[in-house]
Parts: sequence; C-alpha cells; structure tokens
Amino acid sequence: MQHKDATPKEIDSAMQAAEKAFSIYKKIPLRKRAEFMKAIAAELEEKSAELVHQAMQESHLGKERLKGELDRTIFQLTSYAAACEEGSWLDARINKADPNSQPPKPDIRKTLVPLGPVVVFGASNFPFAYSTAGGDTACAFAAGCPVVVKAHPAHAATSELVSKAIFTAIEKTGMPPGIFAHLHGEDFDIGKALVQHELTKAVGFTGSFAGGKQLFDWGNSRKVPIPVFAEMGSVNPVFLLPKKLAAEAKEIAEMYAASITLSVGQFCTNPGIIIGIAGKDLELFKKYLQAKIENTKPATMLHPGIAKSFIEKREKALNEKSVSLIATGENETGENQGQATLAAVDGKNFLENNTLHQEVFGPYSLIVSCADKKEMLAVAKSMEGQLTSTIMAADDEIAEHEELIESIKNICGRFIMNGVPTGVEVCLSQHHGGPYPATTDSRFTAVGADGIKRFARPIAFQNWKNEFLPDELKDENPWGVGRRVGGV
Amino acid sequence: MQHKDATPKEIDSAMQAAEKAFSIYKKIPLRKRAEFMKAIAAELEEKSAELVHQAMQESHLGKERLKGELDRTIFQLTSYAAACEEGSWLDARINKADPNSQPPKPDIRKTLVPLGPVVVFGASNFPFAYSTAGGDTACAFAAGCPVVVKAHPAHAATSELVSKAIFTAIEKTGMPPGIFAHLHGEDFDIGKALVQHELTKAVGFTGSFAGGKQLFDWGNSRKVPIPVFAEMGSVNPVFLLPKKLAAEAKEIAEMYAASITLSVGQFCTNPGIIIGIAGKDLELFKKYLQAKIENTKPATMLHPGIAKSFIEKREKALNEKSVSLIATGENETGENQGQATLAAVDGKNFLENNTLHQEVFGPYSLIVSCADKKEMLAVAKSMEGQLTSTIMAADDEIAEHEELIESIKNICGRFIMNGVPTGVEVCLSQHHGGPYPATTDSRFTAVGADGIKRFARPIAFQNWKNEFLPDELKDENPWGVGRRVGGV
Repeated sequence: MQHKDATPKEIDSAMQAAEKAFSIYKKIPLRKRAEFMKAIAAELEEKSAELVHQAMQESHLGKERLKGELDRTIFQLTSYAAACEEGSWLDARINKADPNSQPPKPDIRKTLVPLGPVVVFGASNFPFAYSTAGGDTACAFAAGCPVVVKAHPAHAATSELVSKAIFTAIEKTGMPPGIFAHLHGEDFDIGKALVQHELTKAVGFTGSFAGGKQLFDWGNSRKVPIPVFAEMGSVNPVFLLPKKLAAEAKEIAEMYAASITLSVGQFCTNPGIIIGIAGKDLELFKKYLQAKIENTKPATMLHPGIAKSFIEKREKALNEKSVSLIATGENETGENQGQATLAAVDGKNFLENNTLHQEVFGPYSLIVSCADKKEMLAVAKSMEGQLTSTIMAADDEIAEHEELIESIKNICGRFIMNGVPTGVEVCLSQHHGGPYPATTDSRFTAVGADGIKRFARPIAFQNWKNEFLPDELKDENPWGVGRRVGGV
Repeated sequence: MQHKDATPKEIDSAMQAAEKAFSIYKKIPLRKRAEFMKAIAAELEEKSAELVHQAMQESHLGKERLKGELDRTIFQLTSYAAACEEGSWLDARINKADPNSQPPKPDIRKTLVPLGPVVVFGASNFPFAYSTAGGDTACAFAAGCPVVVKAHPAHAATSELVSKAIFTAIEKTGMPPGIFAHLHGEDFDIGKALVQHELTKAVGFTGSFAGGKQLFDWGNSRKVPIPVFAEMGSVNPVFLLPKKLAAEAKEIAEMYAASITLSVGQFCTNPGIIIGIAGKDLELFKKYLQAKIENTKPATMLHPGIAKSFIEKREKALNEKSVSLIATGENETGENQGQATLAAVDGKNFLENNTLHQEVFGPYSLIVSCADKKEMLAVAKSMEGQLTSTIMAADDEIAEHEELIESIKNICGRFIMNGVPTGVEVCLSQHHGGPYPATTDSRFTAVGADGIKRFARPIAFQNWKNEFLPDELKDENPWGVGRRVGGV
C-alpha cells in the first residue's frame, strides 16, 4: 500500500486541530484521560491478530516477538493510565498562607499542566511499543497533551491500523477528535515542518543519532525553542571482571550470545561492546561466544535501510586497525539478512579509535581485550553517554573496582549487575534514558510513568480561593492525589 | 577595586579542579552536603554587616533591601540544605524482583545522581540571592555538583566577599576545595569559554533575554549539549476584571504603585503591563496610579548599564504609535537614576506592536485599555511566556472569564489572584519559571527545593545486591528517605 506524504496544509490542519482540542483535553479529569487510554489498549487487544499480521509483513519480526511487543504496548497504556489517574506524577505541593509570619506568607500551591501538542516520531524497531500508540504517545496523553504522530515509513500500514484503534477509542470515550492525528512522511521536510510548526510544544523521538540530533537542532533553533526528547541508542558496554569471568565464562557467553542476537540485534539496549582483561579466561569466553554466534541463523532485518546500514557499519568497524573478525553466524541468504557478527580488538586500539565506540545497529558485538585493570578503567572513562551499562562481577570484586564502578555510573542511565541489558521492564523505577548522546536530556526517561513528566510543566497558584483551584490542589483533595503539604 | 578577567588557563584549571572534586563530592552523604551548605549560611550571617556594606556601594540598593536579600539567601541555603538531607528530591523508587512473574521481573531501583560541574552566572539585580551563593549555587551543591561562579561585574567585590565565605565553609567542613571556584569576567568570551568547556555539565543563569539566549545557544551547539537553565525575566501581565476594578480601583492602584516602584522596579517579577477594559473605572484607576507614581522619588539604579538600558527602552516604548506618557515620578537628578514611569496604550495598538510586549527593566508599567472583554482575551493570547501573571477579580467574575483564565494559565509559571507578582516566597510549592522566553525550559524552577532537580539525573540499578546499592535505595533505608516501593 502506498501512503501519501502529508502536505504542508495537512500538517498545519493537524496542528491547528490539536491546538483546538488541547483547550478541551487539558481540562478533562485524570480519570477520563485514563479511560481513554484504556480504551486504546482495549482496541489494540481486540485487533491484536490483524495488527501482528500486518507488522510481521512490514517488520520481518517474528510473530511471538510482535505479540509480546503488542502486549507490552497494551501494558504501557494501561499502566500509564493507572499512573495518570493516581496522580503522584503531578507532584502536587501545598504551602498554606501564614498571615502571622513577617512578612505574611501567601498561599502557594503547585501542580503540573500539559505543555501542548506533542509530535511523536516512532521507532523502526518497535512498530508497536515505541511507535504510534507507544510509550511517547501514552505519556503525552497521560500528561494531557494532544499527539500528532508521523508514522515510520518502514511500518506505515501497521501504524495506520494502530491509528484507527486510537480514533475508535476517541469516539468511544467522547474525546475531542483533534487530540490525535496520524501523518505519513517519507520526506525529510515533513519532520522538519512538524518540529518547526508554531503550535508544536514538544517532541518525542526514538531512533538513530543522526535523526534525533537533527530534530533536537530544529527544536532549539525555533523562535520559541521546545524540548525535544530523543532516545538515540547506545552501545551498552558490558564490563567483565576477572573473578566472575573465571568462574562463569561459559554461562556468561551463553547469556550474551542470546542477548546479542535477540530480534536480530535490533534493540537500542543491544550489548555492542564487551570489555574484559586479556588472558585465558577471556579467551575461553571468546571461544564459547564464538561457538554460539557461529550457530546463529541469519534473519531478516526490519527494513532494507537498516540491513544496508548494518552491513556498512559492520564492514567499516571490521576494517579498522587491529580489529579482527572472530565469528559470524550462518551464511546470509536472501534479502536484508542480518548475520550475527563478533569482532575483537585490544584496549589500546579501542581507546585510540572513536569509530569503534559507535553503534553498529544489529547483531554485532565487539570484544575489547584490555591489558589490565587500569586500561579497563581508561576504556570506561573514554565512553560516551549510554542507555545502559553492565558489570559482571563477583561480590568481592565490587570494593576493589570502586573507581571503575563510579566511572561506569557516570556514563549510563541504567546500570545492570550480572545480567543483560536487553529487556526493558516497564515500571516506575525504570530509567530508559542516559547522558548524551544516548538521549538529548539525561534528566528524563522514555520508559515508565515518570516519562509523563517530559510533557508537563509546573505552575504555581498564589492566593487562589479553594473553589477556584484545580481539583488536585483543593483542600478537600477530591481525587485523593498524593501531595506534599507544608513540605511534608 | 579592579578584578582581573579570568584567563583561559584559569578557566581550564577551575573546571579541572571541579571535575576532580566532583568524584569525591558526589559520594559525600546528603547530611554532610547539608552541613556544608549550612556552614556557608553561617559564614554569610557572620559577615552580614560587611557584605551589606559592600553591596550597597556596588548595587546602590538600600540597606534594608540588601539585609532582607541576604537573609533570604541564608534561608535558601539552610532550607535547601534541609531538603537535600530529607532526600525526597531523589525521587527514590523501588520495584523488587519477582522471579515468579512470566518473564521474571528483575529488581530495579532508581535514584538521582548529580550531573557534574555547574557554571553559575549571577544576576545584577540580586547580588546575594541569585548570585555567588544564591539559588542556583545552593541547588547545585545540594544536588552534589561542584560550582564555578562567574561573578557579575556590577558587584564583583561583593561576589568576592561571598566567595570567601564559601571557601571558609569548604575548609571548616572538610569539603574537597575544587567544588567551588570564583572567576571574574567582564569580557563576553569568559562566559563563552565556561559554557563551552568540555567538563561543564550544566549552566544556571539569571538575567536578560539576550544573555540567557546566548548561553542557551552555546550550550546546545556544543559537541555534547548541556542543559542551560536561564531565567530571563518577563513583563508579568496583570489583568483587571471590571467588577473588581469598580469595587477597589484605589486599593489596587496603591498596591500596584508600590509593586511597580519597589527596588526601583528592578525585579524580574515587576508588573510591566496592566490590562483593563476602557471605561470610567479604568480611568479612575489610572488617576490614582498616576498620583502615586508622580509622588515617587527617583532612585539610583543598580549600575550605569541598567540605567542606560532603562532610559533607552522606556524612550523606545514611549515613541511607539498611540503610546501616551501618563505619569512620571519626581525629576531625575544625579547619575543613573530610575524615574518611575507610567504609560498607556489602547488594546488594538498593543496587539499590533510587539515592541510594547517587551520588558522595560526598571520602574515602568504600561496600562493597556481594551475595548472589551474580547479584546482583553486577544491580548492574553498574544503574550509570550511569563514568569508570572496576575488576575484581579471578584469571585463571581471567575466563571464568566474561563477562557481568559485558561489563556493566562497557558503563558505563565506562577498565577496570582488578587495580589502583586513582586515578592517570590521561597518554599517547595513555589514555581519561579515559565514558558520561553521567561526561561529556557518551562519544566524547571529557579526558586524552591525542586530547583535541585535541574542539576541531577535519574539512574536505575538493576539486579544489584542490597549491600552494593546507594544508601537511599537499600532495603533498610538508612537515611530514612521517602521512597515509592512497588509504585506506592
């Protein structure tokens, strides 16, 4: 099916409608917003078979993977809906007047209000969970913002189906229709027009560094700059400490072979760099990992662009000084296949070559053999911002690697001990973010209900009579929202 | 006294020392950070007379005003210290492992970690409260960040004295010396070098739009962009609703005459635009305000640059089409005097002329007479982002002006009913921020302990043994920090 790019007029109409709907939607009680979000989830649930079928054709991801992703999307909508209604995210605070204070203290109460229309750019690798009705959309709706989605061209028909579920939910729950719009755009200029539109108040993006950085720059160079939250991937370094490796080389290798090749390596949390200290245990680990990787069947990647980029970036890395190819999966046959690839380099050459620090999106990982503990520390300090970092360590190795652990903490949004970075649990404690270039603002998360705060801003009401305050700030607290009163 | 501009080498040394100190300071327990902040407050208290004396010479502000500001600064330090220690700002969240879930859920716990060295640019109009040991510095120290202050040239000697108090507190509480540096810089390039320095991780600024916007652009155009929180002032519109005005024209005029001329109008919350509906009540209000303004004595402004800019901007506004001068204070005599000025314009001309929407920093206010309620709404909708907005209204006017109230809400960070915008209470419910161009990021505040969050980012720990977790995330919660466990 051919999807026509949105015209400038269509873009403007969508934004105007979003702005108009915003004036209604922002005043709708949290409970109703939550109902709407749950209605989207119900529609997705009902159309599950059709959605998965369509996504399989467009994304080449497996049925189970897509079914799981759709379930996750539904869980995000319902759990963020519950969080929206529960209202802690509003950070409601009340300081009552104190007329006896010198000077008298006024009554001041603070809550959050939505920013306004949010433009969402979905990810190619998550046709459901980080696309049309995905995390950014759910967070924006929970915050009280209308959403304009630019469908990812790699799964435009899936996106179209998901958008229908949202439109149906809008109708069923009586929401103002303009709170959602779905536009197509292969052309670069569509994204630009959306980010630069005067009525756009924030942007959510999941994808490549090049794409996210471009949106960030457009957002900042507007007459009125807007926050652009771009999650731009990461190499997710894994540090293997010696005792742990000596004890469990085989188990770690098996765990990591699975993590590297999961969904043809097409996760932003894919472990792209594994750092160890040269020696027989690391060699053994390599051998086990090599065997596993060699047994990996090639699989079709998301779309031709991703497959092409994977091959190019992998070749570029493999051609760098001192990089050796140590294992490849079974032969690539057919179009757009992603062949699992394992490479190795020594610590010195890794430190000297920034190309090797860059993400190769796909089933690829680079083992870095450091001369010693000191070089491993230097590697940790040399790395850019990451979504995740992992340390594989025996208990008694923690204290003796304090500086290493601090350095790793410094670069990542999520720090895993003795596990794999793939698999991003959806819960309030989750942080899916990290220092630049993992994201454009390390202070916000793309996963978990705290992600709602990307799209809302505080407002303080001073000296307002109780009856005129927003419900969550009224003395009687009709919604039963958690609040801090007098700082407590 | 002449203060030498920092050399590139001095700037680099300060940043290197800050980075080095950061590795120690970030691990210091909250209680110790709080002790350090309270020690700064104690030093300021002890040197109070000397500080006020010096600031009087440099800022031309009155003794009482400066004493009050110093008290506020001390209160900020001690109250943010208390908030730092109490730890709610860490937003600690715990989701325990659930091995029986399908798939099993890992243990994930989230807290905040400091961003790293923060560069603070103080405000000319607040030599204490928003300068060297002011709000930004206190928030950064509470977050666990080292601070490098660029002293404002208008009160460099005061800044020097304040910096000595900080150095003494560092010594007395055994903090790593590099956590604070104090640099001078008249030259534009010093600020640029500080914002662009690789080790700078965030910036706090209070001042003009031109200055803040420049820092914001430098921050965003770095190889690794950093958050620049700039509070850039505002015209703080005041909307007078008809019934309230009819009932209290005289009281409102008196209240506003005082607010407009307070500290020679040199507050970022100064009410620069007052909007009413043309008619006899507004004329009466003007008459009362006119009389008060005419009785205002001129006073010396902060520094020659501010006085010059006040005169220029005021003249520019007065020369715009249909603007009439309706009152001036007593004659200006002597150097750098700020003469209170009241101007008026009709709604139509205000709407057509963006120059009139701009801040005239000083004791100046413009009365906008709207033809009717509809034009008043158009004025509200035409305005840029503001730190504050105010509505003067009788109780029964609220419901009938719902759209106006929503439009005002849309543009401001603090919304005052029946009061004045000057006077910014320091408390947790305070929001001193607002949509661009009031600040560069409407999601953060410059006043109140929530301001700490500008300088920290979340990090999630996955699958960490209890003993290796940061204290605030340990099962036994040794610091007694408020946390959300399992979303509750």
